[in-house]
Amino acid sequence: MNSFAGQHILSVNQFDREAVEKVFSVADQMLPYASRKKRTTVLEGAILGNLFFEPSTRTRVSFGTAFNLLGGHVRETTGISNSALAKGESLYDTARVLSGYSDVIAMRHPDTGSVAEFAAGSRVPVINGGDGANEHPTQALLDLYTIAKERASLGLTIDDLHIAMIGDLRFGRTVHSLATMLSLFNNVKFTLISPKDLSMPSKVCDTISNAGHELIITEKIEGSVEADICYQTRIQEERFASQELANQFRGKFRLNQQIYTKHFKSQTVIMHPLPRDSRAEANELDNDLNMHPNLAIFRQTDNGVLVRMALFALTLDVAEKVQHYIKPVYWYTKNK
Amino acid sequence: MNSFAGQHILSVNQFDREAVEKVFSVADQMLPYASRKKRTTVLEGAILGNLFFEPSTRTRVSFGTAFNLLGGHVRETTGISNSALAKGESLYDTARVLSGYSDVIAMRHPDTGSVAEFAAGSRVPVINGGDGANEHPTQALLDLYTIAKERASLGLTIDDLHIAMIGDLRFGRTVHSLATMLSLFNNVKFTLISPKDLSMPSKVCDTISNAGHELIITEKIEGSVEADICYQTRIQEERFASQELANQFRGKFRLNQQIYTKHFKSQTVIMHPLPRDSRAEANELDNDLNMHPNLAIFRQTDNGVLVRMALFALTLDVAEKVQHYIKPVYWYTKNK
Amino acid sequence: MNSFAGQHILSVNQFDREAVEKVFSVADQMLPYASRKKRTTVLEGAILGNLFFEPSTRTRVSFGTAFNLLGGHVRETTGISNSALAKGESLYDTARVLSGYSDVIAMRHPDTGSVAEFAAGSRVPVINGGDGANEHPTQALLDLYTIAKERASLGLTIDDLHIAMIGDLRFGRTVHSLATMLSLFNNVKFTLISPKDLSMPSKVCDTISNAGHELIITEKIEGSVEADICYQTRIQEERFASQELANQFRGKFRLNQQIYTKHFKSQTVIMHPLPRDSRAEANELDNDLNMHPNLAIFRQTDNGVLVRMALFALTLDVAEKVQHYIKPVYWYTKNK
Repeated sequence: MNSFAGQHILSVNQFDREAVEKVFSVADQMLPYASRKKRTTVLEGAILGNLFFEPSTRTRVSFGTAFNLLGGHVRETTGISNSALAKGESLYDTARVLSGYSDVIAMRHPDTGSVAEFAAGSRVPVINGGDGANEHPTQALLDLYTIAKERASLGLTIDDLHIAMIGDLRFGRTVHSLATMLSLFNNVKFTLISPKDLSMPSKVCDTISNAGHELIITEKIEGSVEADICYQTRIQEERFASQELANQFRGKFRLNQQIYTKHFKSQTVIMHPLPRDSRAEANELDNDLNMHPNLAIFRQTDNGVLVRMALFALTLDVAEKVQHYIKPVYWYTKNK
Repeated sequence: MNSFAGQHILSVNQFDREAVEKVFSVADQMLPYASRKKRTTVLEGAILGNLFFEPSTRTRVSFGTAFNLLGGHVRETTGISNSALAKGESLYDTARVLSGYSDVIAMRHPDTGSVAEFAAGSRVPVINGGDGANEHPTQALLDLYTIAKERASLGLTIDDLHIAMIGDLRFGRTVHSLATMLSLFNNVKFTLISPKDLSMPSKVCDTISNAGHELIITEKIEGSVEADICYQTRIQEERFASQELANQFRGKFRLNQQIYTKHFKSQTVIMHPLPRDSRAEANELDNDLNMHPNLAIFRQTDNGVLVRMALFALTLDVAEKVQHYIKPVYWYTKNK
Repeated sequence: MNSFAGQHILSVNQFDREAVEKVFSVADQMLPYASRKKRTTVLEGAILGNLFFEPSTRTRVSFGTAFNLLGGHVRETTGISNSALAKGESLYDTARVLSGYSDVIAMRHPDTGSVAEFAAGSRVPVINGGDGANEHPTQALLDLYTIAKERASLGLTIDDLHIAMIGDLRFGRTVHSLATMLSLFNNVKFTLISPKDLSMPSKVCDTISNAGHELIITEKIEGSVEADICYQTRIQEERFASQELANQFRGKFRLNQQIYTKHFKSQTVIMHPLPRDSRAEANELDNDLNMHPNLAIFRQTDNGVLVRMALFALTLDVAEKVQHYIKPVYWYTKNK
């Protein structure tokens, strides 16, 4: 990927290390606008088509906010039940029509491959906001960007990272995509902790191994003590054949203050793709860590805005122009 | 409440008389923008998170319009069924994430206390757009602002007002909040007209009495002839134990041209929180009063935009700056 | 219709030839903005109330995009189930309230006459985006505008056109409205091809005949070989008394590459109101024509944006001012 201008962003597999670093470099430049130190009007008059045929409040609003922060308008669609797609319209037709209404499109859809199929008919760049169990490249980019920033705060880079991925590694597209992107870097150590029935697919393990990284597969959280990142995911109990089978894992990968202190070093950063289930019986990632400085889960969602701003700026070819259309911010911004 | 900058607006109980008068003074300054004499760009680039986890078309659009009139963008969420909240995400997490996407939030939610709980996790000011049966402070403020303006047109103030509140005074949060706010003023006379089963809660009556105001409780509309304001609400028949019990009140608190002329003085202003049921069998507030100059119900909703503009300007600390970023209006605005 | 300023756009019957040509002349001027050669800020600060009480993704987004392209904000409402209308609020009340929140309204509603009833209570211009089986004037205008542009590319005008309308001519409001508008022009030849049970209503046929146009009614596609326009619609099988009755028409009015080549001259332009059912069993308008240069279906939806921009500019009286508030476009626009 040499140039982003006019390109679709459909898969983590499009990115080499240079492309990833380009996105992160532009994302860094977006911080003053996201934190309201100043604002830019570079995309004033541009229109984002924010097409969420599958609902996702946070991803949808994050894309919309990112576009507003660059000065643009957002036209939004949510749900599929009443859409023409439900009445037999092809994704090609939908794309041909809706791409006439905007300058760039962010799209989520429940079906694998649907966003790529849509992109083939679109006359404007399409960014994949999740196509079912398949891909969610902006989540992978924001996770990786978060790792890069957490490491940078310690004077380190993504190279030489040790990451522990914990929980349901089989069905979680988030950890698949993140592992694939991390494999672009040097000397990453992966500790993959999950029940056997929920272990990382061999395809992803092969990607890691073929890139020459160290890979440890285990069912026990104990071996992760030296991890720089603890990437926690939910055990999706509904996917087990019976509740009895699920029950044997209940709480086994729970993370709370006590477990964190016992099993991880004091610098280990805690990540989670969110949303998390905060109900008492969830045994996932407890609220007693909410104020812990190493809990990066809300820095992840904040970083998502920066990464999406960067992708809009790059695909619309304004990354170099953002700083030329700056205006002041007049309102209360104390905690931004 | 000495300063509004960065503050949440959660309850009518936050307001003393001075704070109310501050809101109204800023609302007055908003009229030229709402009536399109000119426009302001003071919040150009700012983002409102308009989170309506419980649907309410008019309140949602009124908040959004108010923010647009100050120049800002609106990112919107409606409904709760597909949201992360429905899957066990805490209001704290939702607030931490979504407050990263906007500069101020307006929120409605079906559960009592939910907006305050959300506000505790939010990094930006939160304005309560209604939390179930609990609070709806912007409705109370727009009702009170309407009373102030109707009185001002007669050279009067809210002090020395006589208000008749009619209908379901037990379950209507609107009349509770309005009565509480009116109690901040001097020498207000309340005539509360309802069936015994739907009478004003003693807590609200105590607030009125403790503030030294005159309070008349009755089941008959006859005693309200001298009222300056007739605040009409719906008898919510579905709350009675049986249709037979409900039927005894059917039409008893109906207001139409004939009843109005018979029971009220010619200056009495008619108010209603809207929406009203206009079907013939509703017996609520008849359409034959639609053209009556004293029918203030649509002035109430217009005033809602002014009050919400004022709250945004105050919480974002731009009330003094609005007039410095004025631009002309080029389009047809004859009836605005 | 001498002036559009402040007027509602409710029906094709409001338009004489001069009014139609005025809309088209303004639509022509909108092309540089829609194709992002430049942008205009003439409606910066104005608010469109986009009220879709009946869902329609493409019509809703097209109106919103048109308004954004003129610089304005969009406040949107979709669905009716949770609205006050569903709880007995009159269209008059809804209109009085919501028209206080915007400068112009685009509205779709499932009931015949509802948009006109709403307009009667509105304080701002209302554009009908479809009221059930009744009217959808902007669809008729964009269809006619497409015909005008396709003809102009051949050095021709709408006068002396030969149009074949095919399929369900009984229930399709699109063809009724288009036929009515075409009747305003000179010497149009209509070939109406449909099963007898789905033939064009006599009222529309009378309009055509009374205007002095040639009218051929047939059940066979064979007679349309000389048509300049082939306007294809769907056979709505669910409206037949039985599947057996429907089956006799299955595929009879299908259009694909082979049938097109056999029955039409090489210049015949193919139109369709969209969405089309692209599933194999639909037998409607096949995908093998997708790349055919005479397939105008996506030019229709693109033209819809121009026509809606023109209607906003005219009803808000800024058609002459659009060009005075021009700004440059900085972003990637290669395929616009």
